[in-house]
Amino acid sequence: MAKTAISPTRSENYPEWYQQVVKAADLAENSDVRGCMVIKPWGYALWENIQRRLDTRFKETGHDNAYFPLFIPMSFLEKEAEHVEGFAKECAVVTHHRLEPNGKGGLQPAPSAKLEEPLIVRPTSETIIGATFARWVQSYRDLPILINQWANVVRWELRTRMFLRTAEFLWQEGHTVHATAEEAQEETRKMLDVYAEFAEGAMAMPVIKGEKTAGERFPGAAATYSIEAMMQDRKALQAGTSHFLGQNFAKAQEIKFQNQAGEFQYAWTTSWGVSTRLVGGLIMSHADDDGLICPPKLAPAHAVILPIFKNDEERAAVLPYCESLKNELSTQEYDGEKLRVRIDTRDLRGGEKKWQWVKRGVPLRVEVGPRDVASASVFAASRLMEKGVGVERAKFVADAPKMLGELQQQLFDRAKRARDEASVVIDTLADFEAFFAEGQPGGLAYAHFTDGPEMEAKCKALKVTPRCVPLEPLLGDDGAGECLFTGGRSERRAVFARAY
Amino acid sequence: MAKTAISPTRSENYPEWYQQVVKAADLAENSDVRGCMVIKPWGYALWENIQRRLDTRFKETGHDNAYFPLFIPMSFLEKEAEHVEGFAKECAVVTHHRLEPNGKGGLQPAPSAKLEEPLIVRPTSETIIGATFARWVQSYRDLPILINQWANVVRWELRTRMFLRTAEFLWQEGHTVHATAEEAQEETRKMLDVYAEFAEGAMAMPVIKGEKTAGERFPGAAATYSIEAMMQDRKALQAGTSHFLGQNFAKAQEIKFQNQAGEFQYAWTTSWGVSTRLVGGLIMSHADDDGLICPPKLAPAHAVILPIFKNDEERAAVLPYCESLKNELSTQEYDGEKLRVRIDTRDLRGGEKKWQWVKRGVPLRVEVGPRDVASASVFAASRLMEKGVGVERAKFVADAPKMLGELQQQLFDRAKRARDEASVVIDTLADFEAFFAEGQPGGLAYAHFTDGPEMEAKCKALKVTPRCVPLEPLLGDDGAGECLFTGGRSERRAVFARAY
Repeated sequence: MAKTAISPTRSENYPEWYQQVVKAADLAENSDVRGCMVIKPWGYALWENIQRRLDTRFKETGHDNAYFPLFIPMSFLEKEAEHVEGFAKECAVVTHHRLEPNGKGGLQPAPSAKLEEPLIVRPTSETIIGATFARWVQSYRDLPILINQWANVVRWELRTRMFLRTAEFLWQEGHTVHATAEEAQEETRKMLDVYAEFAEGAMAMPVIKGEKTAGERFPGAAATYSIEAMMQDRKALQAGTSHFLGQNFAKAQEIKFQNQAGEFQYAWTTSWGVSTRLVGGLIMSHADDDGLICPPKLAPAHAVILPIFKNDEERAAVLPYCESLKNELSTQEYDGEKLRVRIDTRDLRGGEKKWQWVKRGVPLRVEVGPRDVASASVFAASRLMEKGVGVERAKFVADAPKMLGELQQQLFDRAKRARDEASVVIDTLADFEAFFAEGQPGGLAYAHFTDGPEMEAKCKALKVTPRCVPLEPLLGDDGAGECLFTGGRSERRAVFARAY
Repeated sequence: MAKTAISPTRSENYPEWYQQVVKAADLAENSDVRGCMVIKPWGYALWENIQRRLDTRFKETGHDNAYFPLFIPMSFLEKEAEHVEGFAKECAVVTHHRLEPNGKGGLQPAPSAKLEEPLIVRPTSETIIGATFARWVQSYRDLPILINQWANVVRWELRTRMFLRTAEFLWQEGHTVHATAEEAQEETRKMLDVYAEFAEGAMAMPVIKGEKTAGERFPGAAATYSIEAMMQDRKALQAGTSHFLGQNFAKAQEIKFQNQAGEFQYAWTTSWGVSTRLVGGLIMSHADDDGLICPPKLAPAHAVILPIFKNDEERAAVLPYCESLKNELSTQEYDGEKLRVRIDTRDLRGGEKKWQWVKRGVPLRVEVGPRDVASASVFAASRLMEKGVGVERAKFVADAPKMLGELQQQLFDRAKRARDEASVVIDTLADFEAFFAEGQPGGLAYAHFTDGPEMEAKCKALKVTPRCVPLEPLLGDDGAGECLFTGGRSERRAVFARAY
């Protein structure tokens, strides 16, 4: 059996493999606060690259960034009955505004500083932003309002897993207001497209765009759309959502405007978001039994140079060579950005150092020893190559962008192949049950359905969920059919899967 | 009396003028949560520009970004006795993790979901980051650790003012660990320099770099340095701080490392931060009775183009001209960045539109009507000009970067002149009392001092504070002298002022 850098391997224990990759790649660690993680520099740099690209797209599509309060008055959640029944029950509740000595050498929340109204740490900001929008919107001239916020949010999750589900996480939430339903629907779909293009183009993670079934909608939404990716364990990951909120939130929050005829109307709103969960999706799409593999477009470093020397004399020859190599590489461009190149001069054994970078998933690894200097060459490896190869230095510098492009494509193709191999069209309940039976690999099942208790009960028993009704069916007929669960008429197939 | 866009004017009521500028420039507004503000798109864009520039400098000086939990366990603050006695008493305390129906149609914190240990919303992150660093640091090989975090923090302030003092605010906090005191001290001063260069170079806000007196130090710091700016009302604003924490935090948090000789030693730490308060400083440095003036290097838009037309025919001539003007201008560069140019086509009266942009402080305003189109010219004004002038279009495009550079310099010069005019050397207590007497304009007083109760009592009576002991004295003798308050020997002058 070949030795792997990550133990256990994916096939031995997938959930534990995931935790070990997060650790070995220096992405994050658990903190001293229950359910909250520390995002380490390599993991945060991935998130920064995700942010930068998405932020550019949000601005190109007409959105402005703004910032709204961390806290939501409890009464705001009371007003949103549907909201309260949703996810907002488990949340962090601020009840006091002062600590004082407790008389026993410790501290306590000061009884005299109890808040009249508790504050909730935002689990999402529809209510507080909606209250603000109600002030901003008076006339049709004020519309559309196209706002995005980069922020932290808190949901008191009982079972947490780094990046995938944490009590506090980082995200962006778009919130928009429109004069017509059509415009709001168009916005909802446009941002879903932005997410899908980002997931496939930058993360090399193939996704299915679709609409959620009624039971899976965001509370209060008229329609919820999502992008769904398949991880290597054949479970689905909801990687981004975009909600058409109809006039529901506008009515609860009194977002009204005077139209050109002078009449007052409720506005139409949307919201959409992606989070640090994307980093989890990136890991589970591409990492292998040797650790992370960063898609080049998002890699914190495109290449790392590892100088190898045994003594001061070799060092004196190798280091300047590495420096000038770094400078040359840094002038090359990939995907519109200068190459991000690091030299690792830490005082560590060569093998240990090399494996650290393999586990971190840097796309290109370059080793330079005295013989490479003498022959004007480098020893270079892409993260997907079995072993590296000696190559002429100038050729490597010239080829680096192409190698990155190939790696990006390889990652996408491999993930798409895995997904397609795990996708099936299913037309009978028996096949559905067999596909998701205990001990079977599972995957993505395209099946006709009708929303209702029969489907819900069967899905619950099999521990699967309808992920979405694809907007552009990838598999199966595009028309009507017969619901697996009731035999009733079904207009479209949904994709069913186990999910994170 | 000339009519001004902002009422009251600075001389009529400075604090109220400030609030009106924040409002008129669309920077921020009070939210539904006590002490928390909504940062509106124009204000947030200023902050994004501040962030981008500082972030680049932090990375150039070797720092990595990371992210740590929003919450701090109460026991962490108990361990930091000095810390608790400082600012951490007024804070947001999370005591419950669930809301439930209260039986009266509303919600309540669920009694069954009381946290065993309350959590504090971070007022600053030394304790939680220090606990993490204690795990990261084992050997001298792990040092230095150079980390920065962009985050929101909460301090339950009783009196708040937008940007200057809010319960929640946005900031960055640098946290570093070093093997030696010298290295940590060097880091502390280096980041102070980064702040000062940013304040003067980008914000056009002259600052004094100095060390805080003992009574003004960050709790637990061995030395606190700050940059101090003077606002137009002659009050000082602490615009950034950099703390040399000695081994104090390392001892409380057990941040130890094995040195090259194999011995365990406590590490030396620093922390440093600036916040959205900088936006307040920017406003009070440059805004006038017509509203904000954005320093060009940080302006959300360098130029706005206002098309002027009375009918469809004029519109058809003017709009394409404006579009092509925008495209031309956008290829020009100022300060290493392409010009940020907007066209305002909103359906508003010309005068109203023009004044909105004056109040928002856009550096260059360009009006284009049919006659400008016919003569291939524009009507252009810099925000500091009395009135605009007609100028040949090609010349304006070519000159725009130079005009921005001149405006940036004018703003700095004007602010520096105001500060210098308000700065005095004071050598007797009588002069000191007269300078800060009720009804006097006040300003910055350079005076000899000894730290102690005499100085503190007198300062308190006069409502002034020692802002800092300048590192490079701008005024007065550089050597020893006689303390104004005790007659004792004083090594250096401090700068005294009223402050925000």
